[in-house]
Amino acid sequence: MTARRAIVRVAQGAEPAHTPDDLAVESPLVLAHDDAPIATLMRTPGHDIELAAGWLVVESGVRAADDIVTLRACRDDDTDRVHITLRDGVRPPRPRAFVTSAACGVCSADVLDLRPLATSRPHSRGWQLSAGTIAALPDALRGQQRTFARTGAVHAAGLADEDGTLRVVREDVGRHNAVDKIVGRALLDGELPAQDRLLVVSGRVSFEIVQKAVAAGAAGIVAVSAPSSLAVDLAREYDLLLAGLVRNGRLNVYAGERLVRF
Amino acid sequence: MTARRAIVRVAQGAEPAHTPDDLAVESPLVLAHDDAPIATLMRTPGHDIELAAGWLVVESGVRAADDIVTLRACRDDDTDRVHITLRDGVRPPRPRAFVTSAACGVCSADVLDLRPLATSRPHSRGWQLSAGTIAALPDALRGQQRTFARTGAVHAAGLADEDGTLRVVREDVGRHNAVDKIVGRALLDGELPAQDRLLVVSGRVSFEIVQKAVAAGAAGIVAVSAPSSLAVDLAREYDLLLAGLVRNGRLNVYAGERLVRF
Repeated sequence: MTARRAIVRVAQGAEPAHTPDDLAVESPLVLAHDDAPIATLMRTPGHDIELAAGWLVVESGVRAADDIVTLRACRDDDTDRVHITLRDGVRPPRPRAFVTSAACGVCSADVLDLRPLATSRPHSRGWQLSAGTIAALPDALRGQQRTFARTGAVHAAGLADEDGTLRVVREDVGRHNAVDKIVGRALLDGELPAQDRLLVVSGRVSFEIVQKAVAAGAAGIVAVSAPSSLAVDLAREYDLLLAGLVRNGRLNVYAGERLVRF
Repeated sequence: MTARRAIVRVAQGAEPAHTPDDLAVESPLVLAHDDAPIATLMRTPGHDIELAAGWLVVESGVRAADDIVTLRACRDDDTDRVHITLRDGVRPPRPRAFVTSAACGVCSADVLDLRPLATSRPHSRGWQLSAGTIAALPDALRGQQRTFARTGAVHAAGLADEDGTLRVVREDVGRHNAVDKIVGRALLDGELPAQDRLLVVSGRVSFEIVQKAVAAGAAGIVAVSAPSSLAVDLAREYDLLLAGLVRNGRLNVYAGERLVRF
């Protein structure tokens, strides 16, 4: 359930350390019903049969174990699959032509589409942020989280300048909605691609959050919590800065360390 | 962005207090393209135009503000809507016959379907848990989060007995996947409906987490973080226990207080 990547660990008063780090694995699981793919879940591998069974309880007419004839896990063409056969008469799940991700629903087609769309190389202008500037961003975000202060229940996203100024902050019960609001603001302001901006997020960084940053053409992501393995891999592929676990004067640089002045 | 509900606040060494509490609002926003509904987002109201614009950046061919002709927010029949008109030639978003929730994708049809499916009244056997037993559940969950301990990046869900024994714990990068794995385990063990079980979750409680508990027939939910307004409303409708912000010897009871021995 974990994957190891080389990262740069930064702590106040210490030299930055290149070190291996364990990341939570995020990878796709395809569910197939009567041999037709019906959904792709972005999940942490392990207990895939249980995941498929539990998904069926919510998404189909399955209510008891004997509503399911077989759940068969297999791996072919580098893809993890669970093949589902239901008892006759049980309402089957409706096919979904998209990825149900770890934390949100996006179309699988869009997952593929995103790559060619990201034509502009971000942060091409050669600026760097100091590790201290990055470390200060989550506190700046928290300082503007008015709804969080009252409820403890919302996520926030913000867009920061290359000098670390937080320009706009939005809150939402959904991590993805908060990012969409920020990207939408930038779009409406004529500021996409946001090549000289950093996306600041209050939560974890899944694959999709990196996708949204790529779609917005942002230079990178600064997050209070940790990224998944796939998020790190995508950030590296697109040469984005990805700083995570940014808290208490510490931070990890998972990708794009050339953007950071240590 | 907040809604007030009457809750019971419990702290060690103090009397339980009935008090109003501010919750993050979660409610549906329907996106319509050329007057046809294409998606429903579960979101915190506010900045809906930005949310729609940002969603389009990821979900359609929109890359600049002038790809959008109009975004018009309105409210009719008690439903919030944003009507989208795109410039000719811009790849439109694909219709989605489902809710993209705050944190996961479920079908809107399933949202409706869930209600009649929840035929069995949970916790009908008359047992109660002490507030102390509930307060101990998150620590028990954390104690079994092996991947979290290494990565800081995964959520967990567990299923507890009415005496507070945690029977099974699953981890995943997705909050919803972790719950699905738990529900799937119970299904495969022939334990649904899980009338005498509590779902224990490491994160926040959105509408969908309550839906999953309802689908599983569980007696209630114990959460480390806070619920949304809609989650509380659904838990009350189905008479589920909902305890949140369960940490440091404190907890809030948002619904089903008759299940708690104070």
